[in-house]
Amino acid sequence: MAETDKKEQVVTPWDVSAEDQIDYNKLINDFGSQRIDAALLEKFAGAIDVPLHQFLTRGIFFSHRDMNQFLTNYIATKAGEAKNAFYLYTGRGPSSGSLHMGHLVPMRFTKWLQDALDIPLVIQLTDDEKFLWRDIEFDTVRQLAIDNAKDIIACGFNPERTFIFRDSDYYQDMYETILSCQRATTMGTSKAAFGFTEESNIGKASFPPVQAAPSFPTAFPHIFGKDLSKKAKGAITCLIPCAIDQDPYFRLSRDYASKLGCNKPALLHSVFLPSLAGAGTKMSASATDGSIFVTDSMDTIKAKIEKVVPVAETVAEAGDDVSLEWLKFFLEDDAEFNKLCEDRLAGAVSGVAIRDRLVAVLQDMAAEFQARRAAVTDEDVEKFFSKRSLY
Amino acid sequence: MAETDKKEQVVTPWDVSAEDQIDYNKLINDFGSQRIDAALLEKFAGAIDVPLHQFLTRGIFFSHRDMNQFLTNYIATKAGEAKNAFYLYTGRGPSSGSLHMGHLVPMRFTKWLQDALDIPLVIQLTDDEKFLWRDIEFDTVRQLAIDNAKDIIACGFNPERTFIFRDSDYYQDMYETILSCQRATTMGTSKAAFGFTEESNIGKASFPPVQAAPSFPTAFPHIFGKDLSKKAKGAITCLIPCAIDQDPYFRLSRDYASKLGCNKPALLHSVFLPSLAGAGTKMSASATDGSIFVTDSMDTIKAKIEKVVPVAETVAEAGDDVSLEWLKFFLEDDAEFNKLCEDRLAGAVSGVAIRDRLVAVLQDMAAEFQARRAAVTDEDVEKFFSKRSLY
Repeated sequence: MAETDKKEQVVTPWDVSAEDQIDYNKLINDFGSQRIDAALLEKFAGAIDVPLHQFLTRGIFFSHRDMNQFLTNYIATKAGEAKNAFYLYTGRGPSSGSLHMGHLVPMRFTKWLQDALDIPLVIQLTDDEKFLWRDIEFDTVRQLAIDNAKDIIACGFNPERTFIFRDSDYYQDMYETILSCQRATTMGTSKAAFGFTEESNIGKASFPPVQAAPSFPTAFPHIFGKDLSKKAKGAITCLIPCAIDQDPYFRLSRDYASKLGCNKPALLHSVFLPSLAGAGTKMSASATDGSIFVTDSMDTIKAKIEKVVPVAETVAEAGDDVSLEWLKFFLEDDAEFNKLCEDRLAGAVSGVAIRDRLVAVLQDMAAEFQARRAAVTDEDVEKFFSKRSLY
Repeated sequence: MAETDKKEQVVTPWDVSAEDQIDYNKLINDFGSQRIDAALLEKFAGAIDVPLHQFLTRGIFFSHRDMNQFLTNYIATKAGEAKNAFYLYTGRGPSSGSLHMGHLVPMRFTKWLQDALDIPLVIQLTDDEKFLWRDIEFDTVRQLAIDNAKDIIACGFNPERTFIFRDSDYYQDMYETILSCQRATTMGTSKAAFGFTEESNIGKASFPPVQAAPSFPTAFPHIFGKDLSKKAKGAITCLIPCAIDQDPYFRLSRDYASKLGCNKPALLHSVFLPSLAGAGTKMSASATDGSIFVTDSMDTIKAKIEKVVPVAETVAEAGDDVSLEWLKFFLEDDAEFNKLCEDRLAGAVSGVAIRDRLVAVLQDMAAEFQARRAAVTDEDVEKFFSKRSLY
């Protein structure tokens, strides 16, 4: 291959890679989504009673589908001028016993959304997906899902308004919705949208509707009422915050919506938290070297960062400095973050100092998380897993 | 097409057709099953305490897989020389509100097997399959399944040893077994075995494991114990009586068995009850003209037969005389049946007389069925549907 050939970037639910930086503008064009612009942020800020989350103001959630329409309906409903209902949907494929920092991005943002919008939330644990994709025991993947649920609960979700479920427990309840989506999707479409081949197992080919189904209120009779009338279905809209690699699932959801008599879900897409080793990949739970887990000790966090994070001694912008890039995600204080960026660009602060600050921020975050995590009980899991009305 | 070109016979779970008679010898060769011979029948007769059913002695169940081995284990267990367990599995795709006479063939035979072998039985109602294959409402197909269950219960199955389930109710319980089978099947294999194409919906492509899963005791924790040890799994064998068009599903089961640590199911295959209009097709619940439903009135049965069944006034063997062919299925008295065959061949009885006898036999059978069916209550359905030990 000639040196000028650039490896094409790949972004699917199972593979995210590019030669250096992911080109997010290209993704917006390829996927056909919209950029989150200043006007949308202003509208969002006007719809809620708290300041916008730094993931929005710093462009970490950068792309959307139908968010304008969602906010219009939300604002009208809040003002008593319309009677719509809304809920949030996010999820997690339980591939390891604990979350890493990348998983916290959608979870922390979803928690903020739940509080800011004051609407119910459903969280899907796709243990069946992991079973179909890996050579792993069913009981093992079900246990990983419980472990992950405890980490998720430790993110602070409202127990009165959050339903967490494993597919292996809850599939039956979604079966009509899943079958309806499966009936509407040909093998050819599934292969084209997700890159499956003749050698892919049939469980994979028919899995996308399992992740698409929770976009529809019909999948949650206990939350929205067992017999959702046509009118009722049409008055409920789902909002899905996710990393942009998950978008293909929800494009399917949006295709299914009219067939199911439901609204299309709205979407908010995030960029990927880059690997500690640098841009071009997303952090993986399987590649432990470039990943920091929420359960890592303070010493481990320090050692991993000092081992893996490169320090550029030249002046650098956030995009070129992994430490600064990570602080963009996790340093909440806007004033401090902005000053660090300026100082770094001006050469007034060293790469090592930035990296030290990152170590401290992540240690604080992990310590806080671990304290909350230690308090999560089996009874909490039972509560979040129980089928109940969230209104 | 030249007149000498013979239409090739097609036998799949969804399509059975041939230009005139189905060539069952060819099916045995194509599918790789074994013919039920005199030695096997003798062994079978020696294993049980009642005479063999006429479906066996008259060759209506004509093909098998592993039935020799099944009987060897059954005999050893009955003699206290081995500790194996056995169960029967059959099913029905609920496509119309009531069964027709063709559906009674496997059901009546399965009831006889259950009594003769004294083993548990599971009956799957594949309402999900019908939903995936047809443009039908989910609630409608679920109700058809209940209606069919009442017909099935009226066949006289032992309520203490029979579990009937709709996939739409019971999918969750089989999920690990289904996923394990799906993980073991590529899209290419599913397409080749069942004739699916790129245009087939993904629900169809992943359905075969749903029908294969009940071949394994792991799908029935309430019957066989929640945590089937490897040893326990290996000591339970399933026996599946079915029309031979269902064989592709259970060839898959037999392929999966070793991966699941379970035994291969044994199979008993029947020919198809021909349409009243003549051989070459199986009776369909959708084509009402050539079908007699178990709910048809005495007058309707008479009228349908006299309208549709051709009468050959020349001497004829059973295969060439639809009435005699149907009597082979449903006239239980061996002496009378054999005499009718002889007399028909000798020209001592007319085609009309044979047809009149068929009318009377089917009227008696339907009247008896309808009386039993009228006595089936919602509580009976609840009992047969309830998850419980069948030992």
